[in-house]
Amino acid sequence: MRVRNRSNSRERLENSPFVFLQPKDNKGKWKDIFGNNNPIHLEIGSGKGKFIHTLAEKYPNINFIAMEAQQTVLSFLLDKVEETYRDNLKLISGNAEDLLDYFAPFEISKLYLNFSDPWPKTRHEKRRLTFSKFLERYEIILNNKKTIVQKTDNQGLFEYSLMSFAKNNFTFEKISLDLTNSIYEQENVHTEYEDKFIQKGNRIYMVEAVKEN
Amino acid sequence: MRVRNRSNSRERLENSPFVFLQPKDNKGKWKDIFGNNNPIHLEIGSGKGKFIHTLAEKYPNINFIAMEAQQTVLSFLLDKVEETYRDNLKLISGNAEDLLDYFAPFEISKLYLNFSDPWPKTRHEKRRLTFSKFLERYEIILNNKKTIVQKTDNQGLFEYSLMSFAKNNFTFEKISLDLTNSIYEQENVHTEYEDKFIQKGNRIYMVEAVKEN
Repeated sequence: MRVRNRSNSRERLENSPFVFLQPKDNKGKWKDIFGNNNPIHLEIGSGKGKFIHTLAEKYPNINFIAMEAQQTVLSFLLDKVEETYRDNLKLISGNAEDLLDYFAPFEISKLYLNFSDPWPKTRHEKRRLTFSKFLERYEIILNNKKTIVQKTDNQGLFEYSLMSFAKNNFTFEKISLDLTNSIYEQENVHTEYEDKFIQKGNRIYMVEAVKEN
Repeated sequence: MRVRNRSNSRERLENSPFVFLQPKDNKGKWKDIFGNNNPIHLEIGSGKGKFIHTLAEKYPNINFIAMEAQQTVLSFLLDKVEETYRDNLKLISGNAEDLLDYFAPFEISKLYLNFSDPWPKTRHEKRRLTFSKFLERYEIILNNKKTIVQKTDNQGLFEYSLMSFAKNNFTFEKISLDLTNSIYEQENVHTEYEDKFIQKGNRIYMVEAVKEN
């Protein structure tokens, strides 16, 4: 996501109790940070955060962590959080590569990958967030019924993800090849990108991949 | 597939050396029937048989079996076979339910399911040709690298099939959510239905599911 720099974003993020710019310090401590035993759901690449912020409002008994590499982007989500002061949503600045430094095994209950970069070139396969190496990391931090929900409008990424999930012994609880017109749409919370892509007439693909421990 | 009765079709099928109306008699003997050790590929529900007849012409070193429940439909494929006299294509009249009566374990190398009846109602799930019970049967008759190729224009059936394959521990060698516009189209042999559906503007879905022994 490309956004203009916001002059005061770094300072605001640093001083906010909702934001963790050094998530490595909190590995294994997320329960304590939320102050309860509710399950923790993580979105990797949350962008401006409409999706996860809406979920946090809708499900007060679930804890949410929004992870976003770009701090300027994260500051837009902070705008929303500072309006609503939800204590079940925390923001972290980080990269999927370092996931095992941020979370201890079994710390996360559900993972969301929304409209991730498709990296269409074969030589960039390793960067796709459903590449085997990433799935292995997700498996480590996820508990019991390991659940990963992916949405994308990118046909190539979706085909690849289905193959990668199956190769890594995930099964599928749900698949939709046209989410917007499916039975799952009623429950579906849109991301900013999703709204744009629907407007353009793109099909939205969704998979819920699971692996029992 | 609904077709008008052809007055002499039963008699023609009975008298043709290409057709086996009692495939149970040949269980475990298909190699002998073809008279060589070439791999045998089976299409379940071959309809009028354009697909498998084209494959048989294209790949003379592979043996093909076209299976079709309706004998009148099978007689249309016999028209083609009697024109070309290909000895690597046999026709059988049979039902997928009785597959284990027709083929011994490991007798088949590859299975094709083209534009099968989608049976959209949940209560008819057991009739879909990718229902677990069917996949278990396919596994038994398939050898080494068990390969099932499915094409359909039916979104619901395709979503279901992907879930069912993964649940039964198949992985995916290929998935296309728009076969006609994919890199696989060049090699793709169309069925009669496929031509019709493309004309109507439908997307064609394709999966190649595999399971190593």
